[in-house]
Amino acid sequence: MAGVAGVLLDIDGVLHVGDAPLPGAKEALARLREAGLPIRFVTNTTRRSRRMLRERLARLGFDIPEDALLTPAAAARRWLIERRAAPHLLIHPDLREDFAGIEEGEDAVVLGDAGDGFTYAALNRAFRLLMAGAPLLALAANRYFREPDGLSLDAGAFVAALEHASGTKAALFGKPAPRFWEAAVASLGCPPSAVVMIGDDVEADVNGAAAAGLRAILVRTGKFRPGDEARLAEGAEAAADLPEAVERLRGPGRRLSAPGR
Amino acid sequence: MAGVAGVLLDIDGVLHVGDAPLPGAKEALARLREAGLPIRFVTNTTRRSRRMLRERLARLGFDIPEDALLTPAAAARRWLIERRAAPHLLIHPDLREDFAGIEEGEDAVVLGDAGDGFTYAALNRAFRLLMAGAPLLALAANRYFREPDGLSLDAGAFVAALEHASGTKAALFGKPAPRFWEAAVASLGCPPSAVVMIGDDVEADVNGAAAAGLRAILVRTGKFRPGDEARLAEGAEAAADLPEAVERLRGPGRRLSAPGR
Repeated sequence: MAGVAGVLLDIDGVLHVGDAPLPGAKEALARLREAGLPIRFVTNTTRRSRRMLRERLARLGFDIPEDALLTPAAAARRWLIERRAAPHLLIHPDLREDFAGIEEGEDAVVLGDAGDGFTYAALNRAFRLLMAGAPLLALAANRYFREPDGLSLDAGAFVAALEHASGTKAALFGKPAPRFWEAAVASLGCPPSAVVMIGDDVEADVNGAAAAGLRAILVRTGKFRPGDEARLAEGAEAAADLPEAVERLRGPGRRLSAPGR
Repeated sequence: MAGVAGVLLDIDGVLHVGDAPLPGAKEALARLREAGLPIRFVTNTTRRSRRMLRERLARLGFDIPEDALLTPAAAARRWLIERRAAPHLLIHPDLREDFAGIEEGEDAVVLGDAGDGFTYAALNRAFRLLMAGAPLLALAANRYFREPDGLSLDAGAFVAALEHASGTKAALFGKPAPRFWEAAVASLGCPPSAVVMIGDDVEADVNGAAAAGLRAILVRTGKFRPGDEARLAEGAEAAADLPEAVERLRGPGRRLSAPGR
């Protein structure tokens, strides 16, 4: 087992579920930090800005600096700035501040989970831009998510609608897109094989990270459902929860080692 | 060439474009009727009831009885009645009268081009029913249509969204679904090989009909675009417009023959 030099953590379902921190999660995070390892927090959430995410996590008892939060919006923002592209933003109102200072236009379509912002008129405007040649930047492609009153359509449904109608293929900026893992690994400053990803989504978190060459651990909390383990990619593993995953990383022969030590 | 015993005609793009009847279309239709052939008019339109369609065609100078108009809504209505299924109707307000007398419920989802009716809340309600096991009845799967100010998203985009999110496959009730052609041929009372379909959409009208064993003619009017002929299925043919297509059916060795004559 190669040494661990950096850690990526999913947030929802790993640190907390809804408004409740998961048992032992705070202590497990503290142990990772004590080991001096760089940690990034990776989420496909597109209904909240990074500031809102940080504030929410602080209320739940997790003190996480904004620049350790890797979101699809931050990745898309970088892409737009590098290309000086003025996008049409089909996103949730709460996410708009993550695109502050970016001029809107018709060079690209950025699509997140816009919720009630998914009107026929808004989708049709995006569709016409795609037909005129604009690329589609999908902040996430999740099919649905769980709300207190049931399952709800996520951004992926609307990505599929626009892809199908326009005959174009979206560029995905969230998990499990290779470019998302590459950016996350780059921000840790160590090779992919020395990075561990811990998440509760067997496809987007765990198998996605494994495909990108990371070590990947599925936790049986959050959206985990019995049977998910049978779908684990080769080399990926499972643990009861974040404390057990961290304990395994600290175990004999699997020493945590900060880069350069 | 086998004799022709029945004719299916697409409407928009074959008889008229927008509010303008196509040149010679009325006379060509009259010649078909003089030959004593049964004719049905097949359309994927789901933004108008059959009554509205008939009235609109009458204003354009085409006198077509309502029961000769074969629409996806009429086919879906039959399906629902046969199974005593109470549907959730995600359709355009103008189409609702085609489902008059059908009790609404949660047994199935019927999806047409709902236009501004495609809100997040309406789509999410349909999604939850699909996740609970209700079948998805798609009145059409067209990707987009042309409006005066540009292309617009058609029902197919939202079928794709719900199929992708729910992991279910829609049952299509419009062209080019085999069940649509079977019902159309059955209503003409002759074998598929003796039926001619004339349309302006190379995929939905012409290749769809050819795949169902009908003779199929593509007209170069309406949504026809240069290059469409290269996509014609084997055995399908092309004509300049409805008058030329009808003339060809009447030509030497291709005599029109009414059933039983």
